[in-house]
Amino acid sequence: MSRRIELYDTTLRDGSQGEGVNFSLQDKLLITSRLDAVGFDYIEGGYPLSNPKDAEYFQRVRDLPLTRAQVVSFGMTRRRGVAAEDDIGMQALRDSGTPVCTIVGKTSAVHVFEVLRIDEAENLAMIRDSVAFLKAEGRTVFYDAEHFFDGYRANPEFALRTVQAAQDAGASIVVLCDTNGGRLPEDVAAAVDAVRKVLTIPVGIHCHNDCELAIANSLTAVDHGAIQVQGTINGIGERCGNADLISAAANLAVKKGYQVLRPGGVEKLTELSRYVYEIANMNFRSGQPFVGTSAFAHKGGMHVHAVARLSASYEHIPPETVGNERKILVSELSGRSNIIAKTDKFRLSHDNELMTRILNKVQDLENEGYQFEAAEASFDLLVRKEAGLYQPKFERLHYRVNVETEGDRETETEATVKLRVNDKIEHVVAEGDGPVNALDTALRKALATAYPNLTTMNLVDYKVRVINSTEGTAAKVRVVIESRDDKAVWSTVGVSENIIEASWLALVDSVEYKLFKDAEVPGN
Amino acid sequence: MSRRIELYDTTLRDGSQGEGVNFSLQDKLLITSRLDAVGFDYIEGGYPLSNPKDAEYFQRVRDLPLTRAQVVSFGMTRRRGVAAEDDIGMQALRDSGTPVCTIVGKTSAVHVFEVLRIDEAENLAMIRDSVAFLKAEGRTVFYDAEHFFDGYRANPEFALRTVQAAQDAGASIVVLCDTNGGRLPEDVAAAVDAVRKVLTIPVGIHCHNDCELAIANSLTAVDHGAIQVQGTINGIGERCGNADLISAAANLAVKKGYQVLRPGGVEKLTELSRYVYEIANMNFRSGQPFVGTSAFAHKGGMHVHAVARLSASYEHIPPETVGNERKILVSELSGRSNIIAKTDKFRLSHDNELMTRILNKVQDLENEGYQFEAAEASFDLLVRKEAGLYQPKFERLHYRVNVETEGDRETETEATVKLRVNDKIEHVVAEGDGPVNALDTALRKALATAYPNLTTMNLVDYKVRVINSTEGTAAKVRVVIESRDDKAVWSTVGVSENIIEASWLALVDSVEYKLFKDAEVPGN
Repeated sequence: MSRRIELYDTTLRDGSQGEGVNFSLQDKLLITSRLDAVGFDYIEGGYPLSNPKDAEYFQRVRDLPLTRAQVVSFGMTRRRGVAAEDDIGMQALRDSGTPVCTIVGKTSAVHVFEVLRIDEAENLAMIRDSVAFLKAEGRTVFYDAEHFFDGYRANPEFALRTVQAAQDAGASIVVLCDTNGGRLPEDVAAAVDAVRKVLTIPVGIHCHNDCELAIANSLTAVDHGAIQVQGTINGIGERCGNADLISAAANLAVKKGYQVLRPGGVEKLTELSRYVYEIANMNFRSGQPFVGTSAFAHKGGMHVHAVARLSASYEHIPPETVGNERKILVSELSGRSNIIAKTDKFRLSHDNELMTRILNKVQDLENEGYQFEAAEASFDLLVRKEAGLYQPKFERLHYRVNVETEGDRETETEATVKLRVNDKIEHVVAEGDGPVNALDTALRKALATAYPNLTTMNLVDYKVRVINSTEGTAAKVRVVIESRDDKAVWSTVGVSENIIEASWLALVDSVEYKLFKDAEVPGN
Repeated sequence: MSRRIELYDTTLRDGSQGEGVNFSLQDKLLITSRLDAVGFDYIEGGYPLSNPKDAEYFQRVRDLPLTRAQVVSFGMTRRRGVAAEDDIGMQALRDSGTPVCTIVGKTSAVHVFEVLRIDEAENLAMIRDSVAFLKAEGRTVFYDAEHFFDGYRANPEFALRTVQAAQDAGASIVVLCDTNGGRLPEDVAAAVDAVRKVLTIPVGIHCHNDCELAIANSLTAVDHGAIQVQGTINGIGERCGNADLISAAANLAVKKGYQVLRPGGVEKLTELSRYVYEIANMNFRSGQPFVGTSAFAHKGGMHVHAVARLSASYEHIPPETVGNERKILVSELSGRSNIIAKTDKFRLSHDNELMTRILNKVQDLENEGYQFEAAEASFDLLVRKEAGLYQPKFERLHYRVNVETEGDRETETEATVKLRVNDKIEHVVAEGDGPVNALDTALRKALATAYPNLTTMNLVDYKVRVINSTEGTAAKVRVVIESRDDKAVWSTVGVSENIIEASWLALVDSVEYKLFKDAEVPGN
C-alpha cells in the first residue's frame, strides 16, 4: 500500500496575499466546504491577529458540517520579551478555537540577528514558548520553519536547532518553508534528509514558485520522506504564487501513486480549480497543468489526427482522470482534420468542398481579429451558415445607444432597437446599467413575442480585448460574451472597431445560438 | 569554467501552436532579431511545408543581420515509401536554405506500429534517409526524438535504435522530447543517462509543461549532461505550453552557474519576455517566475517591512539580475508600511493621520471594486487628494455618447463633452471609432487650449473586467487604461455599473496624472 500524503491548503491565508485576491468572509466559508468535500486534510483559514474578518471566520467555521478537514489558524511565534500568555498573537490563536494551530518562526541566523535583532537563545525560547503554550491549551501545533532552506544553507546547525526546539516543545510536525521560492530540488532533498536525521516527528514542505520549481520541490520533499504538502488552489499567492495543490495532488496521485484526498477526489480537481477561480473572481489560466481548459486541447492538424487514432499519443493521462476534457481547437494552423472533428455533430465531414469553405471562412475571420477558440457557439453558427443550415431569426433595421450624464448625477443609458421579426416591425426602447445591458434588454424585448424561450437565458460574463493593430489601421475590439440557460453555457464573439457594435454582434450570436439549440431539442 | 548550455528557441514554430497565438511574418522577423540580440543560439523559424508564411519567412530572414543565432527550419522525416529527394517535406527543408535543419521522427514502437503503421526497418530507414539527405545538402542536422521518454519507457532498445540511426546518418545532436509533457525528473535523468551511454554525439532536451515540471525536467537533463535546452519565450505553446526559456535561462545562469546567452543577456530577460507578449498580443502573466510584474512584489505588511530592512530576506535574487524591479503593492492587507513605502516620493510618511486616511480610502474603494495594484497613476492622484495636494484641472458639466447604426451601414459614434476649464466653458463634439475613442477625443479637444501638452500623450491599452457581484447587486465594470507619452507609461482605473462612465473616470485620471506629472518636471 502506498503512503498517504497529507494536503494542507493555505489558499485562504497565504493565497490571499496574492495580487488581486480578496476573499469575503462568505467566500472563505464556501471554499472551506468545498475543500473538505474533495478531501483536503487541513484548511488554514487565516491569520486571526491580522484582521477582524479572519477572526470572524474562525467563529463561523465552527458551524460548518466538515467531515474530514481540520481547520487551522495561523500566527507567528510570540514577540520578543513577552510571555506567551500575554502575547496578543498567541491569544488570538487560542481564541480562534481551531483544533490545529500553525506557528511560523525564524530559522535563519540572518533573520534572527538582522531582522528581529535578538540573540539565538531568545529565538529558541520564542519557538519553544509559543509551541508549548498552544500545546498546553490542548491544540495540535504545526511548526512552519520560515526560510528553512536559506537558513540551512547558510548555517545548518543554527537551522536544525530551531526545528529541534519546536519538536522539544511538542510540535506535531515541522514544515520546511522555501519562503522566497529560490531553492532547487537538490537543495530540498539535502535539507529534508538532514532534518529527518535529527527529528523524530515528521516533516512537511511549503514551497513558492519563484523559480518555477514549486511542484518539483514539493515532489522531491515527498520522495525524501515528507508526509505533508502545503500549497494553494491554482497556486495563487504573492509574487509567483505558492505550490499549486492541484498540480501537486495530480502528480502525487496519478504520476507517483501516493494516496491523497478522498477516494474520487482527484477527479474533482478540475471542478475545484474553476470553483476557486470563480469565487476569487479571477480568470482561469487556460494553460494550467491538468485542469486548464487547454490542458488537453489539440490544435495542430497532425496532432489532432494522431489523437483521434490513439489518444494516449498526445495526452499524458486521460483528461477524465482529473475531471477535465479533451478540446479540439479551430485555428489558422488547424487544417482539415480539426474542422472535421469540430463539425462532427452536423455529419458533414464527407463534404470536402464545404470543409474547405469553412476553413477559409475561419481564416478570413481570424485575420479580422475573430477567435473561435473561446467562442464555440459563434463557430457553430458559422458552420450552419456555410452549410446552408441557417435562416436568420430577424433582420436588424436600426439600433441606437445613448449614454448621458449631467454633472455628478447618475449616468443615464438608453437603447432603441428596431427589428423585422417574422414580417412584423418591432421597435422598442430600454434602459440599462450600461450600454451593453441596455442593448441586450432592448434586443430581447423586441424578440420576446416571437421567441418567448429567450427569457430563460441570461448573460453571465462579458470580456473585452483590444486587438492592437501592428499595421497602422485603427485598433479593433473583440468582445466575448458568455451566456447561460438552465441547460447549457455558451460563448460568442464579435469584432469591430466599435465596442458597441462588437457587443451587438456577440449578443446576436448568443440569441441565435440559443434559438437553434432549443429548436433541436425535441419538445422545446 | 562552467559549461555553456545552448538555448534553442522554438517560439516561432512550437510556440505558435499555442491557443490564441498567431504571428504575422513581420512579427516573426522582429522576434528573430530580438532573440539574436539577447544571445539565443538557435532560432527555429517555422515548418516550411506547413504554410506559405513560414516558407516566406525563410526567404526574408536571410536579409536580417544576425550576429550569433543560427536559423533553423523544422520538418518531419520523409514519408514512408518515398525517396528522401522526392519527399516534399525534405524539399521544403532544403529550399528553406537554413544552415541547420531539425527533423522530428518517431521513437516509440506504439507510434510506429499503430500511428504510422509501418515496420521498424522502414522507421529506421526514414530517419537515416532524411538525416543523410540534408547532411548531403551541406546542412547541420538536429534530430528531434518525438515521445522519446514514453518510447524509452515502453521499449528501451527500440527507442535507442532510433537515435542510433540518426547518429549513424550524420545528425549533430539528438534532442529528447517529452512531447506530451507527462514525464517526471527521475524519468528524464534515467533516459538521458542511457542515451549518453550509447551515443557519441551530444544530447538536447525538449519539454512540455503538462505536469508543471518542464523546467525541472530541463534542468535535470542538463545536470545529466544535456548540452541544449529547447523551449519558447514565456512558455507559450499548445496545451500547457513548452518549457519557458526565460525561466530555464535564469535558473541555468543565476541558480546553477552555467553559461547561457550573450554576456548581459540574462539581464535582458524581462524586456524580452514583455516584448514577445506584446508582439503576440498576449497579456503578461503577472506572476511569471523571474520576469512577471509581480515576481518581486510585496503586499503583506510584515514582508514589506522585512524587505525594507533586508531585501535578500524575501527576494531570492536581486530583481535587476533578470532586468526586473521591485514593486510595493497597495491593498486591503497591506497595512501602514506598504502605504508608507508607496507614498515615499511625497515625503508624507511622518503624517500618521494622513496614512490612516489613505489606507481607509483605499479599502473603501477596493470594496467598490477598484484595484490600484495595476493603476499606480490613480493611486498617485488618490494620495494627492487626501494630502491636499490636488486641485481639479477642470469641472465636468455634461457628456453624452451616442452610437447608432442603420441596417448594415457603418456604425456612427459621436461624443459631446461640456467642461468648465479655468472659468471658461468648453463645449465640444467629436466622432470616434468607438465610444471610448470618441469620448477621449472630445475630452482632449475640450482641454487642448488650456493644456497643449496633452497632445503628446495617447492611450495605448484598454482593459475591461466585469466584476461579478456575489451579493445580488448589479455587476460593475472595472476599466483600466494604459497611457503613454514620450517619457513614461502610466495606468489608471475607473469603476462603475456603466462601462462608459468607468471609462470616463479612467480617462480623466489619465489626463490629470499627465498634467500633474508634467508640472513637476522643471522646464515643462
